Amino acid sequence: MNKKETLHVELGSRSYPIYIGAGLITNQSLLIKHIASTQVLIVTNETIAPLYLDTLRSQLASNVEVKTAILPDGEACKNLEYLNKIFDSLLEGRCNRQVTLIALGGGVIGDMTGFAAASYQRGVNFIQIPTTLLSQVDSSVGGKTGVNHRLGKNMIGAFYQPKCVLIDTSVLTTLPDRELSAGLAEVIKYGAICNIKFFEWLEENMHKLLSRDVKALTYAIKKSCEMKADVVRQDEKESGIRATLNFGHTFGHAIETHMGYGKWLHGEAVAVGMCMAADLSGKKGWLTAEDSARLRALCEQASLPTKKPAEMTPQDFIKNMKVDKKNVSDSIRLILLRKLGEAVIYDCSDESEMTTLMASCNGSKG
Amino acid sequence: MNKKETLHVELGSRSYPIYIGAGLITNQSLLIKHIASTQVLIVTNETIAPLYLDTLRSQLASNVEVKTAILPDGEACKNLEYLNKIFDSLLEGRCNRQVTLIALGGGVIGDMTGFAAASYQRGVNFIQIPTTLLSQVDSSVGGKTGVNHRLGKNMIGAFYQPKCVLIDTSVLTTLPDRELSAGLAEVIKYGAICNIKFFEWLEENMHKLLSRDVKALTYAIKKSCEMKADVVRQDEKESGIRATLNFGHTFGHAIETHMGYGKWLHGEAVAVGMCMAADLSGKKGWLTAEDSARLRALCEQASLPTKKPAEMTPQDFIKNMKVDKKNVSDSIRLILLRKLGEAVIYDCSDESEMTTLMASCNGSKG
Repeated sequence: MNKKETLHVELGSRSYPIYIGAGLITNQSLLIKHIASTQVLIVTNETIAPLYLDTLRSQLASNVEVKTAILPDGEACKNLEYLNKIFDSLLEGRCNRQVTLIALGGGVIGDMTGFAAASYQRGVNFIQIPTTLLSQVDSSVGGKTGVNHRLGKNMIGAFYQPKCVLIDTSVLTTLPDRELSAGLAEVIKYGAICNIKFFEWLEENMHKLLSRDVKALTYAIKKSCEMKADVVRQDEKESGIRATLNFGHTFGHAIETHMGYGKWLHGEAVAVGMCMAADLSGKKGWLTAEDSARLRALCEQASLPTKKPAEMTPQDFIKNMKVDKKNVSDSIRLILLRKLGEAVIYDCSDESEMTTLMASCNGSKG
Repeated sequence: MNKKETLHVELGSRSYPIYIGAGLITNQSLLIKHIASTQVLIVTNETIAPLYLDTLRSQLASNVEVKTAILPDGEACKNLEYLNKIFDSLLEGRCNRQVTLIALGGGVIGDMTGFAAASYQRGVNFIQIPTTLLSQVDSSVGGKTGVNHRLGKNMIGAFYQPKCVLIDTSVLTTLPDRELSAGLAEVIKYGAICNIKFFEWLEENMHKLLSRDVKALTYAIKKSCEMKADVVRQDEKESGIRATLNFGHTFGHAIETHMGYGKWLHGEAVAVGMCMAADLSGKKGWLTAEDSARLRALCEQASLPTKKPAEMTPQDFIKNMKVDKKNVSDSIRLILLRKLGEAVIYDCSDESEMTTLMASCNGSKG
């Protein structure tokens, strides 16, 4: 059995462990320990299924009835229509309330499977096996589940915690470069909002992460999950500090919504969003130009875009940001930086201020 | 202001009041007290909208932005597709996380609005204003929300509590006779499963309820809500005693699913289901033939059907009942009666016993 690290997300009766290590997908005893039922539905996508579905399935005990739901790959299927296909599989398979759902895939599969688990028969167990760096460091921790609506990202969903999360670092060997970079955007975010030391570690070790050095990746994943778990423990339902995890996301979601789901990877949109938020933080007199440039340089080092789509105007952003979940009444909630390693929540209720702030803000150096 | 009665559903931080009285829909201060937001979406249907929508809307404060979503009437629209129309209204209306949803209608509107509130931006406030007897005594209490799937009733949903329930008995004046009877099925259920005195009161006062005597109706509604609230308080997530509220429902759901949603009213299917469950209770040696006949007679007095659809075989029931949410592993969970006023949970794991039990069971006298 391979060495593994274990983190605990402390949420009272909804607490759960996160296991991190190479080859966890073949750690049969770990899987079986968390499956109380005799029915399992594995939800995955067309890209991941040929790579890992049989391996996972062969780990499950012979007395477990295993069904699968294989969705198309990508954000375009993260909606109620495809969610219903998971319910189709559950009901056609005559799954009862004791079924365990296993999410085998990236953030889309994790979010959809989690929401399906929250909603099927008003709540059944689920396990996350995230297969992208982004989902390993972000969406598999914290219990946010859901689907998109054509008018807004993640607008329909539930807070629902898994029974456990298995982060198998071996699966990152098959991850495309572009998706590795997208995951690094969320890793950079943790440094930027709450941990300058980790930010500095990233500046020094980004090349190792890009070359998929297992030790560096394991460290970055563990630190990211720790930071997220710590924030979620303090504020599960996002009434306060959890909002800081949305650094870069308000702008990022606007980009994803405006450009059409799936054109930009989530992490790419977040990278640009972080650079835009850094620009705004500078305009508010908080972040220095030098630190803003460090954030941009780190994103560039991770092969991430840092400039907003040319066709998007400030009004395009404001329109999309107004329906963002994080907003309180009429204001737009922005997560800005007071300095590198310290986020600040800023509710901007003055649309003209918002327009002015955004006028020359594009995440680029110019 | 009209006299009103108040019940409290005790669920810790999710506790809420149920108000019962004539004319509550025009009790402005009561409504305003429970709406903290400046955005409201009223969800109703095409039958109820012409009757009560303007009245309700005129009660809301002038600083509240009121939007409406009007769905077709009936169980046939209780699905994800129409649920999405509520999300359309919320997002087109740029509703934020502080919005309050108001369910103005029967059980379908209440269940869908509740699930929409549970899921929109992962949870917003909602208020129930049930307009049918059935929803007043049943679905507005207890926090079960959701929609149907083509393969099973209420298979997709959440446990989610409203901020308050306003039961306006005046609206029953416009309720069709058939729907009044359907509501009485649930009222009878409470007597049958947990309160012989109330059952006897119903035997004596059914004619008053049918003639819409306000005092009798108010009493029956209050008692029903009290009994349900008491059960829900003990077992919100249905791990034990709450299952007894499903008396008649396992068979009833099978009828609704097999016959197609909307052909039978829910209460009609439940009435037949109760008579079938009484038959089975007799076969198990629990309920006497005399008491079984009393239950059937009370249903008949309420103008409810008591005989299963002729075309449905025992296998049709068993097939549909197997996917019922209440089942534990492979068994079928039945709610039977030990005697009038006392329910018993019976998990039948032996399909041949089930077939035998059901062979001559049709809810009818013969």
